[in-house]
Amino acid sequence: MLLLAGAFRAWAMMLVSIGIIIKILLEKRMGERIVIIGGVAAGPKAACRIKRLSPRAEVVVIDQDALISYGGCGIPYYVSGDVADEKELRSTSFHMLRDEFFFDKAKRVTAMTSTRAISIDRAEKTVLLQDVKTGAEETVSYDKLLLATGSQPFILPIPGVDLDGVFTVTDMHKAIEIKARIAKGQVGKAVVIGGGAIGIEMAEALKDLWGVETSLVEFQKQLLPNILDWPMAAMLAQHMDDKDVHLYLGESAAEIVAGDADHVAGVRLSSGKTLDCDMVIMATGVRPRSELAKEAGLHVSSKGGIVVNERMQTSDPTIYAAGDCVEIPHLVSGRSFYAPLGSLANKEGRVAADNIVGIPTIFKGAIGSFILKAFDFSAASTGLSLESALAEGFDADVSLTSSSDRAHFFPTQQVLCLQLVFDRRTRRVLGLQGIGGASDALLARIDAAAVAITAGATVDDFGNIEMAYAPPFSTAIDAINAAGYVAENLIDGRMRQMRLELFYAWMENVTSQPDWLVLDVRHPKQAKPFMEKYGDLWLNLPYEQVRDRYAELPTDKTLVIFCNAGSRSFEIQRLLDSVGLENNIVLAGGYNFIKRMGADWLPV
Amino acid sequence: MLLLAGAFRAWAMMLVSIGIIIKILLEKRMGERIVIIGGVAAGPKAACRIKRLSPRAEVVVIDQDALISYGGCGIPYYVSGDVADEKELRSTSFHMLRDEFFFDKAKRVTAMTSTRAISIDRAEKTVLLQDVKTGAEETVSYDKLLLATGSQPFILPIPGVDLDGVFTVTDMHKAIEIKARIAKGQVGKAVVIGGGAIGIEMAEALKDLWGVETSLVEFQKQLLPNILDWPMAAMLAQHMDDKDVHLYLGESAAEIVAGDADHVAGVRLSSGKTLDCDMVIMATGVRPRSELAKEAGLHVSSKGGIVVNERMQTSDPTIYAAGDCVEIPHLVSGRSFYAPLGSLANKEGRVAADNIVGIPTIFKGAIGSFILKAFDFSAASTGLSLESALAEGFDADVSLTSSSDRAHFFPTQQVLCLQLVFDRRTRRVLGLQGIGGASDALLARIDAAAVAITAGATVDDFGNIEMAYAPPFSTAIDAINAAGYVAENLIDGRMRQMRLELFYAWMENVTSQPDWLVLDVRHPKQAKPFMEKYGDLWLNLPYEQVRDRYAELPTDKTLVIFCNAGSRSFEIQRLLDSVGLENNIVLAGGYNFIKRMGADWLPV
Repeated sequence: MLLLAGAFRAWAMMLVSIGIIIKILLEKRMGERIVIIGGVAAGPKAACRIKRLSPRAEVVVIDQDALISYGGCGIPYYVSGDVADEKELRSTSFHMLRDEFFFDKAKRVTAMTSTRAISIDRAEKTVLLQDVKTGAEETVSYDKLLLATGSQPFILPIPGVDLDGVFTVTDMHKAIEIKARIAKGQVGKAVVIGGGAIGIEMAEALKDLWGVETSLVEFQKQLLPNILDWPMAAMLAQHMDDKDVHLYLGESAAEIVAGDADHVAGVRLSSGKTLDCDMVIMATGVRPRSELAKEAGLHVSSKGGIVVNERMQTSDPTIYAAGDCVEIPHLVSGRSFYAPLGSLANKEGRVAADNIVGIPTIFKGAIGSFILKAFDFSAASTGLSLESALAEGFDADVSLTSSSDRAHFFPTQQVLCLQLVFDRRTRRVLGLQGIGGASDALLARIDAAAVAITAGATVDDFGNIEMAYAPPFSTAIDAINAAGYVAENLIDGRMRQMRLELFYAWMENVTSQPDWLVLDVRHPKQAKPFMEKYGDLWLNLPYEQVRDRYAELPTDKTLVIFCNAGSRSFEIQRLLDSVGLENNIVLAGGYNFIKRMGADWLPV
Repeated sequence: MLLLAGAFRAWAMMLVSIGIIIKILLEKRMGERIVIIGGVAAGPKAACRIKRLSPRAEVVVIDQDALISYGGCGIPYYVSGDVADEKELRSTSFHMLRDEFFFDKAKRVTAMTSTRAISIDRAEKTVLLQDVKTGAEETVSYDKLLLATGSQPFILPIPGVDLDGVFTVTDMHKAIEIKARIAKGQVGKAVVIGGGAIGIEMAEALKDLWGVETSLVEFQKQLLPNILDWPMAAMLAQHMDDKDVHLYLGESAAEIVAGDADHVAGVRLSSGKTLDCDMVIMATGVRPRSELAKEAGLHVSSKGGIVVNERMQTSDPTIYAAGDCVEIPHLVSGRSFYAPLGSLANKEGRVAADNIVGIPTIFKGAIGSFILKAFDFSAASTGLSLESALAEGFDADVSLTSSSDRAHFFPTQQVLCLQLVFDRRTRRVLGLQGIGGASDALLARIDAAAVAITAGATVDDFGNIEMAYAPPFSTAIDAINAAGYVAENLIDGRMRQMRLELFYAWMENVTSQPDWLVLDVRHPKQAKPFMEKYGDLWLNLPYEQVRDRYAELPTDKTLVIFCNAGSRSFEIQRLLDSVGLENNIVLAGGYNFIKRMGADWLPV
């Protein structure tokens, strides 16, 4: 015990010494000049953190725009009108506008707006600047430099992208112009190109709040490619369709067609069809803005992201980088990836600031947590999708569950459809994605999952995640636990499932497979429309009668067991297996998934 | 590589062998009789899981009540009318009533209701049963026994508890009777005894939905003692008060007063005051129901919980226990604790079931996640409170933050007040608690925190928790990250804070301390009422002017820096320290906390 106490004391003294050393280092650094290129998210965050850590440091923020430090992710909500004034996107939570004056007065940070950084002289430790309005050049020297140059929109290499009425959603000026045109009634029809997050949010803003007739074009066959797997993306598409957004999936924009006076008149698709419109929103993704870094000889990846270490240092130790211009480690795949999100930009900016003043904080990476509101739905994911996991070489599989987001007897209850992605060999959970209502219910499960996945949790750990429970918020067996349970049953060979992709293929051509039928264990009323449409292919034996009546089941056919959520199907599979009727398979996800995804073959 | 591949193959074959062995064991166990005593949560869960794992096992569930397998946590929502029919609490999500018939038909589980387990003969492996209605006795033998005997309400040892109109909220019959009386208009005034979760939920049900004049009596000085620390509990109390629930905190019920015909007429408090009422809800907590276990010689803790190992085995390896009758390990304190929650009962029941059929699953314990809806507020906690952490010997401290639950420009935004409890020595996070709006926003942060705390996260880890970000759901710097940041700043000595308890003490007697004043850095309009009330004690120097005007500040007084959330105060502290004005301290939490907590000394 004494020994232990002694060790503790030594350790405590060491901590104190480290504290003193850090303090001395901080003092020494006071008076250093830190130049930050980029004034939207990571840049201002780092600037303010540096000033809090080291109030006497000289901090200069350079931005080519006149407007800085805004919440770019809020643009769709400004366009929709949820946010009345663009200034709200540029204000603090205590309602002060974050302009040059604010940075000077409140933070003593020099914000040089409308100023472009032209080049970096690493030997001299200077940056060549140019006044955007006058063209005048000047040089600023730095002790430490932070590149927070952000991203730039990818512009499709097609004719017509420069026409009047074609917009990207990347800065406040464009956002203001888009909203002004809509508000003036100049936009009756709009085409959004790109089915990623910004495209979907903009489609909702145009359609839901302004009633603009809106089409969305995505060249891949689903919305949110690389983020959601097909079943979830199909639910989202069905919902957008229900809300009268016209979706053109698997089609690309071939040309933006001109009307009068170089104004956009339509978008011609690869199929030949032309969509008439007064406005085009091009939301085809962003790319890291890293030319400055590249020209300065810093290490930039083949995909264009600035390469940094855990302390956000570039290949030049006096130059840091953070935000949408960098690549970061993916903590599941182990590769670096590009994650241009305001939330990560702030974290990275803070870590850069700490290191710039001598506090050795680290940023380990991320797993790509994502959430989106689309009309009455939320869609979210964290970690790897099934498709990505398979591409990374994992022995990946999924569990599909549809649980209540709160007690099934609670009035505001909605179904939460989840897909857990896991590795069968190691039992590790690789990702979780889902579709829920327009509440924070899905957020809660995704956030808890993100922490667990980052910590290396297995499917067994997911079964035991301790979610706070009360009927207005959750169920006794939380959706996230249920997802873990099903995954356990799959890995341990207690459950055999048919994936929705395969079931859709069979249903689209029911005679393509010999000797199978659907065993629908739901209530006869629920099964009736299917039985009427599919005759002998669709057999109804209600769940609670199977133990008494399984002898009536055909033994020469594969039984695809069908219920709403898959849980009754699993139980029936266990029963049938135990009595020798092993030629059966559970339909993963069940009707709760299918009715949200929609299908041509569903009874009307 | 070959070696590695060989090792993998050996490992894979080992897994296959284990699978075969488990299967053989399962087959062997088929036909075993498993007796489960208790039919509410853990019992039915285990029964159904056993039948899924081992469909031919014989499973018997014994319960002294006629009604089984209900969601007891839903009772307040049934009383309120949110849930129209009590059957909804006893139904599956696919709307089948979970009665004896259902258990027989759908599960092939024998449910013996209205049957009391009298004693256990461990040598003979039998249980003596008694029919509650006829008194007839019989003996049932078991191969494995599961005790899921649940909890019983604690009844205050005061006169009058047997009067007509005095209810506990512990089974469906009482719930039905309570609601029937209210619906018939027999309840004009009610007194709830006990300020725990059930007491608060019942007070809301009575007041909000039925308009019953409701008082709540709690003998400790705050609501939710041992769960929330005082600042959070004070916010909740203020909100209940705003909703016209009459709170009597720090007062105990001395007697339940009789009126006509042995019907309750009031509750006399320890202060002497009598509260008139037609109904008393006694919600003074529950105790494990462990007499049967104790009489059978099983190990029961001094607090009455049945002691089990990680596989939910009691001290007799053929007898398992799960649910409200057991104690489980607390994964932060390292002690066993009592956590009677439906969510944990289900998890424990599932683990018991696995082990009963020979699958060695484990239940590691819990950290006590908790959430509650109270009118327009949510209150939640996970891990240890500050008070508990100090009592456990941790070097505990707290960070108080009040962040937006979604982008501050998003229309439905509400403030989320969080308290992070951490250990200064190890930097480990010990707990998180908070107050939010009646959404799932607080749930999301508590659930993510619960996973992180269970994994042993530090305050630094909290700063980097990856919360899914989009303006309708969260902020770029999430509330949970902000809580971690403040904790880091506190531990690293960059921030010195004054706790709210001390500030309240100073404000309640402003002359008790010499030479201090409040430096309010908010907008002059916000500071004005305080300046008018407190004169020289209250100095306003707006945040953005401090860098220009700090020389005007008095140097002979302690400055308590005051803002809405504490973040501007922290920045000003850093600035003042850097210019030698180190006699200053940040008011933790700030006005966002104080205005929700209320105080006599606040300007009206």
